[in-house]
Amino acid sequence: MSLVVVGSVAYDGVTTPAGKIDRMLGGACTYIALSASYFTKTDIVAVVGDDFAQEDTDLLASRNIGLEGLERVPGKCFFWAGVYSEDMNDRETITTDLNVFANFSPKLPEAYKTQPYLMLGNIQPALQKVVRDQMPGALLTGGDTMNFWINDFRAELLETLKGWNFLLINDSEARLLSGESNLKKAAAKIRALGPKILVIKRGEYGATLFHENGYFAVPGFILDSLKDPTGAGDCFAGGFIGYLASRGVSMDSAAPLDLGRAVVYGSVMGSFCCEEFGVDRFRTLTRDEIEARFEEFRVFTAF
Amino acid sequence: MSLVVVGSVAYDGVTTPAGKIDRMLGGACTYIALSASYFTKTDIVAVVGDDFAQEDTDLLASRNIGLEGLERVPGKCFFWAGVYSEDMNDRETITTDLNVFANFSPKLPEAYKTQPYLMLGNIQPALQKVVRDQMPGALLTGGDTMNFWINDFRAELLETLKGWNFLLINDSEARLLSGESNLKKAAAKIRALGPKILVIKRGEYGATLFHENGYFAVPGFILDSLKDPTGAGDCFAGGFIGYLASRGVSMDSAAPLDLGRAVVYGSVMGSFCCEEFGVDRFRTLTRDEIEARFEEFRVFTAF
Repeated sequence: MSLVVVGSVAYDGVTTPAGKIDRMLGGACTYIALSASYFTKTDIVAVVGDDFAQEDTDLLASRNIGLEGLERVPGKCFFWAGVYSEDMNDRETITTDLNVFANFSPKLPEAYKTQPYLMLGNIQPALQKVVRDQMPGALLTGGDTMNFWINDFRAELLETLKGWNFLLINDSEARLLSGESNLKKAAAKIRALGPKILVIKRGEYGATLFHENGYFAVPGFILDSLKDPTGAGDCFAGGFIGYLASRGVSMDSAAPLDLGRAVVYGSVMGSFCCEEFGVDRFRTLTRDEIEARFEEFRVFTAF
Repeated sequence: MSLVVVGSVAYDGVTTPAGKIDRMLGGACTYIALSASYFTKTDIVAVVGDDFAQEDTDLLASRNIGLEGLERVPGKCFFWAGVYSEDMNDRETITTDLNVFANFSPKLPEAYKTQPYLMLGNIQPALQKVVRDQMPGALLTGGDTMNFWINDFRAELLETLKGWNFLLINDSEARLLSGESNLKKAAAKIRALGPKILVIKRGEYGATLFHENGYFAVPGFILDSLKDPTGAGDCFAGGFIGYLASRGVSMDSAAPLDLGRAVVYGSVMGSFCCEEFGVDRFRTLTRDEIEARFEEFRVFTAF
């Protein structure tokens, strides 16, 4: 069933130990949508400037991603540049030019308002709430956030989280949001804020999902070579919600096994993302490759 | 089948966010043996001073641990004290008094030389080699090491590793030993040094085992509360080799499923260790609790 993804569509410049790319397609919305598109019909809501390249529009369209909500305004696209550490677990931001993204006000096409799945990429919590409030009938709604909103927009974020079924964050964000260092206690506190399904992304170490009846954990896939981790967390999110949407899962029908498989598909998509710079892996990736890697997860976790 | 464990038997002082203990039983050999004793007959080779308490001898004996190789000499036991960070992922050493451990020269009782399993705790590689060379018929031999030996005794360590079937180290040690940041490449280089079975312990994130046909990974158990991580890695080692010994596994017969289960039992034992200070959890732990947690691993990793 159809998924709406809201967030940034941007250009990135990255330097990793594997190389340097001055400008490439990026943005949370881009990665989430490309990843989710392997599982379900996906539509995006985002803003780009007049420098957004035709080939990038074409890439999104080639994955059958709905672009009715992709607003084009005068100015330049959001641009971010950063440099990764030797082990690629940390990165330093060199440039953040918000450009047209500074005034982003998500406009949901009328037809999207009745769609059943909503994934809110990391943008200002108040904007996430505006969109969510326009889709009251959604079966499953959730999103991502980051330390900046947790620290400086806490009240606004807490108000937004009340309306979410799921939240995807990393360990340090979970500890920051909850004020608890023990992950189980942190999860309990966060789930009490609204999102009953909490996914904690742990980078190369895998991911853990907390739900009503306990938790699920999967270790990370060990890559032969890692070129660029940019977008891996968003691709995880796309695989996670995309799989649940493809299964027609609602908050009430979400079984632990569905959620666990969604985490594994998320992990699969995050792992593919890192194999090439930016979105390049999605230019060739097939659903068969996704299924083959899902099976690899079964093999290396079997005991 | 019987296991010989060689390493330190010591006293520790620890400060963690959960409390402070000035002096408690510790040492790699102690933790490995207590943990392994739940799976197989275990004998230790270690040295203690004349301050080694009768109640600590009694604890080891209560687990049917063979003490013929526990040498008693004039002087004081090895004493280590440290303070853990808020998240307990790091620790700072405050005191290291080697005392009688400074002149430790492992003396293997004659009867131990024909035992089938050998686990060498983290001591000087040359000493590990002396012991290993006295047990040429062992079915499975391996051990632990640390950054100090990797950096300052590399040649000696490499000579020692040639005689091992398995090595247990953490990620950063694996990267230091191999000079590779990619874990798969690091594992391939290390396995070429001798130990065909490589277990990389990743603390709260779980563990990964590399073998001839691929790898196995398990996420960490999420504890309700963590009091003291001292000895967790050694308890992992004890569960790992203890389980393999209980199954009569040799280097030639080690199947991926045996190895995976051994990693899970190792993880189970490491998780119990952290629940109380020092070895306290082993004063009450039962085999039934171990099996129940092993089943919990099955549940939270199922997809």
